[in-house]
Amino acid sequence: MDGLKKHLVILGSTGSIGRQTLDIVRQFPERFELVGLCNGYNSDLFRQQVDEFKPKFVNTLGEFESGYGGAKLIPTEEIVSLPEVDLVVAGTVGCAGMSSTLAAIEHGKSIALANKEVIVMAGELLMQKAREHGATILPVDSEPSAIWQCLEGETSPPKRLVVTASGGAFRDYKWDDLHDVTPEQALKHPTWSMGKKITIDSATLMNKAFEVIESQWLFDIPFEQIDVTIHRQSIVHSMVEFEDGTLKAQLGPTNMGQPIQHALFFPERVANPSLPTIDAVAMGSLTFEEMDPSLYPCFSLAIEYGQMGGTYPAVLAGADEAAVQLFLDGQIKFTDIPNAVQKTLEMHEIVAEPSIDDTIAAANWATEITLSSNKSSIILG
Amino acid sequence: MDGLKKHLVILGSTGSIGRQTLDIVRQFPERFELVGLCNGYNSDLFRQQVDEFKPKFVNTLGEFESGYGGAKLIPTEEIVSLPEVDLVVAGTVGCAGMSSTLAAIEHGKSIALANKEVIVMAGELLMQKAREHGATILPVDSEPSAIWQCLEGETSPPKRLVVTASGGAFRDYKWDDLHDVTPEQALKHPTWSMGKKITIDSATLMNKAFEVIESQWLFDIPFEQIDVTIHRQSIVHSMVEFEDGTLKAQLGPTNMGQPIQHALFFPERVANPSLPTIDAVAMGSLTFEEMDPSLYPCFSLAIEYGQMGGTYPAVLAGADEAAVQLFLDGQIKFTDIPNAVQKTLEMHEIVAEPSIDDTIAAANWATEITLSSNKSSIILG
Repeated sequence: MDGLKKHLVILGSTGSIGRQTLDIVRQFPERFELVGLCNGYNSDLFRQQVDEFKPKFVNTLGEFESGYGGAKLIPTEEIVSLPEVDLVVAGTVGCAGMSSTLAAIEHGKSIALANKEVIVMAGELLMQKAREHGATILPVDSEPSAIWQCLEGETSPPKRLVVTASGGAFRDYKWDDLHDVTPEQALKHPTWSMGKKITIDSATLMNKAFEVIESQWLFDIPFEQIDVTIHRQSIVHSMVEFEDGTLKAQLGPTNMGQPIQHALFFPERVANPSLPTIDAVAMGSLTFEEMDPSLYPCFSLAIEYGQMGGTYPAVLAGADEAAVQLFLDGQIKFTDIPNAVQKTLEMHEIVAEPSIDDTIAAANWATEITLSSNKSSIILG
Repeated sequence: MDGLKKHLVILGSTGSIGRQTLDIVRQFPERFELVGLCNGYNSDLFRQQVDEFKPKFVNTLGEFESGYGGAKLIPTEEIVSLPEVDLVVAGTVGCAGMSSTLAAIEHGKSIALANKEVIVMAGELLMQKAREHGATILPVDSEPSAIWQCLEGETSPPKRLVVTASGGAFRDYKWDDLHDVTPEQALKHPTWSMGKKITIDSATLMNKAFEVIESQWLFDIPFEQIDVTIHRQSIVHSMVEFEDGTLKAQLGPTNMGQPIQHALFFPERVANPSLPTIDAVAMGSLTFEEMDPSLYPCFSLAIEYGQMGGTYPAVLAGADEAAVQLFLDGQIKFTDIPNAVQKTLEMHEIVAEPSIDDTIAAANWATEITLSSNKSSIILG
């Protein structure tokens, strides 16, 4: 840092998290310097971002001529490893972004991590490498961010983490009523506006299982000490229970601005008039109900295989990514998502103590096998 | 401390807070050593406590023979000032306990403060003396304790404190319907089991105004940044809003065990199976409604005079203590409490920058004048 300025790299800059991160950077030009921007295929928006934020280095899967806007095109792993980089915002989705996150960790960077799949896939290894290299993982996902904030300043370990779940788009339905729901219906999240993959994962509660698996690694706490409560209003983003029976909760609007900003500014808290707020004195009713796992087969499946560890979580993440894509493309039904994921999990031969390469290979295998064995299953009946 | 053992003095040992503190001390004999016990008039229970906990020093307003149970009778101010004392639990009620709290502060002790009236009366001076002498004030009252816990680990100042209020015994009534309520009715708190004075103060919401005044001094924040919300379930004990729009809340059972234990063990959190707990995954509905100040004339009155400062808060505390006593004794009606307090406040000539002696004198004057000018007003019509 020079003075108060943090030097950033954003992975997934044209995605939902990337765009909201740039909104905050735009508000505080005196606090952040964009060293690098990396994205997938959205070339037009990417070029606009390069024009506006003038990063020195870029990487993209889309069309881009090195030198455009003064930005040099180099590999993402090199960008995150540059000595001047203070903080890498990992805003990629799904299994992509593993290698760049790993490079950032191995160079001891701070990483604002929105991409939960990389921790689901290889949490044990990544956290171990982070300790080895002095890298800091700052959660951006709202639930782990809430838990992190509730743990700040505490010296005793927590007794239980209570992850809140809105219940997703179909929380008022039974699973068996959902055979014919369309992608459009599943993409209508009751409280959050997010990317497509995570919105479908919210409807199946696969997303919530990922957060449980993620929290296990981020906060070094056994599965048995993590519970989920259905909190329809998405105001309480999660809670921590301590040994003495006290609980802390973190609350805020259903907006990713706050958790992103917290990771960017940590430990400072800064006013940002462009972020929404809630009025705590008149919140009305906040409800907390036990979750019925029978309504959410993806959740139970993911917890079962998540607990078995090894390469299973990577297969889970890879298979889910494919299954969600198949559903969005109209290739499988909504209620086929857990079946498709389960079939792939059952086919997998676990590697009990995998390397990072093993987890990447397992995830890629799972994605491919899930895609190839489920394509056009609707059409073929 | 020798090793992990904290050396305690308890002021008000036979009162509600004192007894609950001793319950915790009883659970953890290896962590606490009772140096001194002080109480008011409850002689029988006091002797039982001396028999059980064997303090070296005692003070009481009741009957007690120095040397009983091996305990020497010396002034309270001397007990709290002993070099071996680590922590003084101020569990007295009302304006009593000011001089012993002051002595503890002037000897740089840690003080677990349940007696909010002393901070209401002389918060500015006491906090200034605490800074001078390196004394630490640890809030025990559940709302300030919640705020303290929400601020732990935060480096930026809060934007707003949100104090929760159950609404008291008459929260479903209009003020004008309360002329004929009896002390028995007013002592039925909907959620908390506490001493008589604080339960009546909860019914009038005078208690909530005291907490606002108290929080102002404890957390060094202006009145305008402290708000009250009606939270009927008393599960969320208070909240803090930060500059970035994030809120933290502290939750727990409606039981003083947790906040007392937190002050005793701070910063540690320790399991205590004898304390009740809540199940965060199935809390049902927690409600947060704006308070209508017209329903609570004591609250508005107290905030008005609290903001004027000087000796007014001491007069407020002294007059309220008398007015509550008059109501409990059947001398005035419930709805006369604010009138009696207001009459005394209006008679008072403020000392703008009072000494501790000025505040004690003002409180004593207010108690006497309120008692003498309101006695038997019901009987005399």
